Amino acid sequence: MEWLQGDERLDYLLAENLRIIQSPSVFSFSLDAVLLARFAAVPKSRGKVVDLCTGNGAIPLFLSARTKAPILGIELQERLVDMATRSVAYNELDGQITIQQGDVKGIAKIIGSEKYDAVTCNPPYFPVEAASDKKLSEHQAIARHEIHLSLEEAVANASSLLKQGGKAAFVHRPARLIELIDAMKKHRLEPKRIQFVYPKAGREANILLIEGIKDGKPDIKALPPIIVYEENGEYTAEIKEILYGDEK
Amino acid sequence: MEWLQGDERLDYLLAENLRIIQSPSVFSFSLDAVLLARFAAVPKSRGKVVDLCTGNGAIPLFLSARTKAPILGIELQERLVDMATRSVAYNELDGQITIQQGDVKGIAKIIGSEKYDAVTCNPPYFPVEAASDKKLSEHQAIARHEIHLSLEEAVANASSLLKQGGKAAFVHRPARLIELIDAMKKHRLEPKRIQFVYPKAGREANILLIEGIKDGKPDIKALPPIIVYEENGEYTAEIKEILYGDEK
Repeated sequence: MEWLQGDERLDYLLAENLRIIQSPSVFSFSLDAVLLARFAAVPKSRGKVVDLCTGNGAIPLFLSARTKAPILGIELQERLVDMATRSVAYNELDGQITIQQGDVKGIAKIIGSEKYDAVTCNPPYFPVEAASDKKLSEHQAIARHEIHLSLEEAVANASSLLKQGGKAAFVHRPARLIELIDAMKKHRLEPKRIQFVYPKAGREANILLIEGIKDGKPDIKALPPIIVYEENGEYTAEIKEILYGDEK
Repeated sequence: MEWLQGDERLDYLLAENLRIIQSPSVFSFSLDAVLLARFAAVPKSRGKVVDLCTGNGAIPLFLSARTKAPILGIELQERLVDMATRSVAYNELDGQITIQQGDVKGIAKIIGSEKYDAVTCNPPYFPVEAASDKKLSEHQAIARHEIHLSLEEAVANASSLLKQGGKAAFVHRPARLIELIDAMKKHRLEPKRIQFVYPKAGREANILLIEGIKDGKPDIKALPPIIVYEENGEYTAEIKEILYGDEK
């Protein structure tokens, strides 16, 4: 098997001792994906997990270190499905992780509704209009902008996959908090855990993590804040541990 | 004028160089009130401010250091109205602060609807049922438990006082975040700023500050986290400055 194509690189997921295929012009995972994979509750072994908008498969790869459950990654773009599939194969995780091409809209009709225990989703964040302003490849524009999937569609489809009591975790921009909570409640996901990520101490949050339980009872916890950078621009100890693991 | 009654004390509001009458058996203000008075947006001079559930008047006293606008404090309990009124007089702030006895429910009919620029509210936090479990005086039970005022009633009545574009700021428990956001949106208060307060680094938040703008556009900022205590149990530098002012 030819592992790499074009400008692709084989990067390390250091904390998990895995490798991942990335491409500067097509798709690279962000800190958001790393934090979501750590934040989301997943079953230890029994149960089934789906990652929506899986991109190059970073979240399934990270989650494989935390669960023995089968993980299904859904991605719209064939090019990214191909990258993610090669990464899974490279890490010999084909037995646990499956990457499937598909549109998140209506996905439950294809892979089964109310059958899953946990869903993760790092959806496109930005409004459609903003996509044309930036020098993005079509792949990047689709992954980052709400061109084929709105926030509410992401939430509604995540919910439709979950069993009662199943958990859906999302990462998004804090500015969309109210809209995200509205969508979750509308689609039977009661928000239960929330965590904000701040670029530096004393700054406003720039990443929001939130998890809901399908048909859960109202009661939410706000987890400790995560600070990404020290004043000097270095990663904080917490982020170093998340990115590089305990030993570094 | 006899300044103190029964077990009342004349405590310092150090950061503001003010004094406040408190009583261990009747009412003492908490850190929540201090943080809300600092968090809330208030007009510098023009405009009118209302503090609902004002208790012994801590929030109007704190706010008087940040605005020249007239501040009206509304309190249900005569005993607390009396304490707050004496504190205002002691600090010679009668020209700026008025304390008025009244029920928050229906308050706009009495003091005027859509006439105010900013409303603050540190409402009773706890469910009615929990009140009987604890050794509380009736004064404390009413101030802390939703006996005479529910969360939604607090939000609805705050909104009814505000002009379009006016701001309402609340402090509450993080567990009630979703309910509070629901109530705000239902009563035309678009949440625009949110801030969580954590007892120590690495712990879950235990205080929530949130502000909405009447008929505002959706877009919310998550302000930097506030940590109250260092690992050794001392106040953090940030809290010391809030409580004791710059010089300490």
